[in-house]
Amino acid sequence: MKKSDVVQALFANKNQKATRRESGLAFAPTNIALCKYWGKRDTELNLPNTSSLSISLPDKGALTKLTFIDETQDKVVLNDKPLAADSAFVKRLVQFLDLFRNEENWKLNVNITMNIPVAAGLASSACGFASLVSALNDLFAWQLSTKELSILARLGSGSASRSLWMGFVEWHAGLQRDGMDSFAEPLPFTWPELKIGILPLSTKEKSISSREAMQRTVNTSLLYANWPKKVLQDTVIIKQALQVKNFSLLGGTAESNALTMHATMLASWPPVCYFLPETIAAMQQVWALRQEGLDLFFTQDAGPNLKLLYLSDIEKEVKKYFPSLETIKLFD
Amino acid sequence: MKKSDVVQALFANKNQKATRRESGLAFAPTNIALCKYWGKRDTELNLPNTSSLSISLPDKGALTKLTFIDETQDKVVLNDKPLAADSAFVKRLVQFLDLFRNEENWKLNVNITMNIPVAAGLASSACGFASLVSALNDLFAWQLSTKELSILARLGSGSASRSLWMGFVEWHAGLQRDGMDSFAEPLPFTWPELKIGILPLSTKEKSISSREAMQRTVNTSLLYANWPKKVLQDTVIIKQALQVKNFSLLGGTAESNALTMHATMLASWPPVCYFLPETIAAMQQVWALRQEGLDLFFTQDAGPNLKLLYLSDIEKEVKKYFPSLETIKLFD
Repeated sequence: MKKSDVVQALFANKNQKATRRESGLAFAPTNIALCKYWGKRDTELNLPNTSSLSISLPDKGALTKLTFIDETQDKVVLNDKPLAADSAFVKRLVQFLDLFRNEENWKLNVNITMNIPVAAGLASSACGFASLVSALNDLFAWQLSTKELSILARLGSGSASRSLWMGFVEWHAGLQRDGMDSFAEPLPFTWPELKIGILPLSTKEKSISSREAMQRTVNTSLLYANWPKKVLQDTVIIKQALQVKNFSLLGGTAESNALTMHATMLASWPPVCYFLPETIAAMQQVWALRQEGLDLFFTQDAGPNLKLLYLSDIEKEVKKYFPSLETIKLFD
Repeated sequence: MKKSDVVQALFANKNQKATRRESGLAFAPTNIALCKYWGKRDTELNLPNTSSLSISLPDKGALTKLTFIDETQDKVVLNDKPLAADSAFVKRLVQFLDLFRNEENWKLNVNITMNIPVAAGLASSACGFASLVSALNDLFAWQLSTKELSILARLGSGSASRSLWMGFVEWHAGLQRDGMDSFAEPLPFTWPELKIGILPLSTKEKSISSREAMQRTVNTSLLYANWPKKVLQDTVIIKQALQVKNFSLLGGTAESNALTMHATMLASWPPVCYFLPETIAAMQQVWALRQEGLDLFFTQDAGPNLKLLYLSDIEKEVKKYFPSLETIKLFD
């Protein structure tokens, strides 16, 4: 099944071409997974092997503004800089826009502003595609539900499906072949004391994309076999921890989930290793501080940087040990 | 089943007390596993979940000399230094000797000389227990077969079962509850060009013993489920590689096996991590050199140091990149 089939099915009973507003505008937050998305059952539709669970960063993300232009090709501007038409990022965006063009031949100026520190390893494609579909929805007045936008965002980038909501979000793996049941939804929890800090450890570009790393893991890592079981356990535990506000349980489960994801990569061939010496040094420091009684945990995505998890009452102490920590607001 | 039951069964048809020579002397090499031993099906008898495959280091190991003493307790001297009776090492040795005392009440002076650089993370218990059982066999003139000595050495320390032979050695997991089929045997391969170099990266004492780490992995790591399958594949491939002298296949399989073992540990809780920043830095260097065409691989045991695998024709180049490398003779 192709992406275009999914788009067609989704718009089957809707008027896709109804209106054209002058411009479309939308912001989407980036998100950090507490229970990771790692491995696809369908690489074309970005259908995951497992569900996943994240928290959105309300102040960090992408603002996308769309306007029609009278040109032969789309234009993409990122943080006020026009991008080359043959760059990988622009090609991916244009291919995504193609899904919605049908026989019409509109071209867009896509103006994206991201306030994500590029070096911090925050998923830019997640907030990028989520804000793009929301801006398209605004531009064409599709009036799609957030759930439908989540499905469309997933077609651009898997984790983008989670960036349609603030707060805690669960992306349901779904079972259907067309992925119509694979979308994200908000979870009814809030936790004002919960804090995330980004620990920037390296600005080196990663040696392998998460897309490729994920695929190599699924194809070559024998240890991947039990990853779905791990996720199944962890999503249940994390929801319990959110329900009763048990921070140690939340932090420990999130850290274990991240380490297990990286473990499946290490067992791939050729090995996939997002650990840098600085990553290990920071982990050892977190473990040492925890041994001394500090309720501090980390999570790590497909990059060398760590995200620290803690409650607001120890933020001062955490910042003392990690002066470079960039603290993030999660709740108002 | 207890260790003493196994010893009794093993000596059932033999004259355990036949002779007492004046002293017993034996050397045993240490060994480095190319396919690792990780996880026990019986913690009392050190029966492994899987077979494993190693190479012995003929010049590195333990020389044990035993003499009777007229004292109330055994004495242990390591590298000319008498050890305290209440040290963990002495207690473990004395408990092991107890297995062979029966109603007799002999006491021994156990003089062990090890030429293993202590900081290099080479298994001292492997060569220690292998040389001890061989020296006991010499002292009491038991005339046990090497296979029987391998079973006895295993009761002291699992990997000691492999240190009864030089060259390539396979320790068969066995199926029996009493472990009488769980012993090591030499493999009929030789490879004079094969080299191992020890890369000493840290002299810090490890934070968790391999015995404890192994148990925690088996008990808490969901990823451990597929480790036996990995070992099954790797032992077959390594034997094929030894047969046809395919070095890239040998090195790649050994490296993947070691990384997969460490991956099972990372997925434990609390996490078990023998990587230090220096370990990751050295791994990254090996991977970068391999990308440039150098046929260089590593293996890592339950400690932070790496052992590099390569063929003799690139030894000079390898030493250029890793000046601290301690090269080890494997074959004459």
